[in-house]
Amino acid sequence: MGDFMVNYPNKKEAYKDKNISAAHRGMTLERDINDTNKYYLDTDKAAIYKKPTPITIVNVDYKSRETAKITEAYFQIPSTTDYNGVYRGQYIDFEAKETHSRTSMPLSMIHQHQLDHLARVLKYGGIAFLIVRFAVYDETYFVPADRFLKQIASSTARSVKHEWFQENCTLIPYNYVIKVNYLQIVDKIIDGGNF
Amino acid sequence: MGDFMVNYPNKKEAYKDKNISAAHRGMTLERDINDTNKYYLDTDKAAIYKKPTPITIVNVDYKSRETAKITEAYFQIPSTTDYNGVYRGQYIDFEAKETHSRTSMPLSMIHQHQLDHLARVLKYGGIAFLIVRFAVYDETYFVPADRFLKQIASSTARSVKHEWFQENCTLIPYNYVIKVNYLQIVDKIIDGGNF
Repeated sequence: MGDFMVNYPNKKEAYKDKNISAAHRGMTLERDINDTNKYYLDTDKAAIYKKPTPITIVNVDYKSRETAKITEAYFQIPSTTDYNGVYRGQYIDFEAKETHSRTSMPLSMIHQHQLDHLARVLKYGGIAFLIVRFAVYDETYFVPADRFLKQIASSTARSVKHEWFQENCTLIPYNYVIKVNYLQIVDKIIDGGNF
Repeated sequence: MGDFMVNYPNKKEAYKDKNISAAHRGMTLERDINDTNKYYLDTDKAAIYKKPTPITIVNVDYKSRETAKITEAYFQIPSTTDYNGVYRGQYIDFEAKETHSRTSMPLSMIHQHQLDHLARVLKYGGIAFLIVRFAVYDETYFVPADRFLKQIASSTARSVKHEWFQENCTLIPYNYVIKVNYLQIVDKIIDGGNF
């Protein structure tokens, strides 16, 4: 899972800036979260994983059974969010998005059925959120799904302003060992505190 | 997700019997569970999904951006189970296995890290189980992960006998609309009843 992965939903954005390679762009947050999840796993805290990228396989070369080679496949639009798992008896579900905008997060970064999925998770009693990074400010926000869904339902804008995140969301602290320690904020949700 | 998918872990088995096509073998249970999960979703009951098959992508042809074509990729060994999601505020996690054996379920069907994952889910307070189908008897068992893990830890056998499932597990009823109604048994676990 830590292998090379093509970051399908952000692919278009990757073509905009020639200074940042397509492979790297938008991958930093994903890597930081994967490292964090591995830390949670290694320290026996939570089992939270990134789902594999959904693909439709059209052709497989079975010449050698041990190394079946997929020779034709296509990316699918994901039905759910990228990350889920279990922590302190709770179902955890979130989507991670990194934007290079200085002003707002474009809603085109998220598919409608991912938003529908987050709403369902809330309804069925899970903990649902987004992790949104504004790369230019080096800020990573914990965004409760209910607040985010309410915000986008109340506006016709095709993006959510940076100020909204500043005013309504919690910054996730960074440290070298735990790069995106989002469970620290989940703890507050479980314990019923303010955050 | 309902598209064609290669059933990686059972691939070897698929070569044994020429009468059953490789594509069909072992896919019936998967299809029945996918139908059931779709029913749960459509009836606003639970959000439980099959994870996509994990693959390592080596080469992608980006000639046309809308139809990026993966031209070289390989199957990975899955780190977790195939299915997870949320129901009645609970984290649900399971693996599904279909065997064509008359006598036992071979443990070679399950990877060690999938067993480790099920143990972790239990430890973190999730509901973990297996759904095991003996195709020749048309029997589909709900197998609580704790019982299964205890059983295989207590024995050096490389398989679990059919009798063990008969004596220790619950048959999941089949009906045309809900093909593998496993949440009926999960309800008993949540409500603390015997099953």
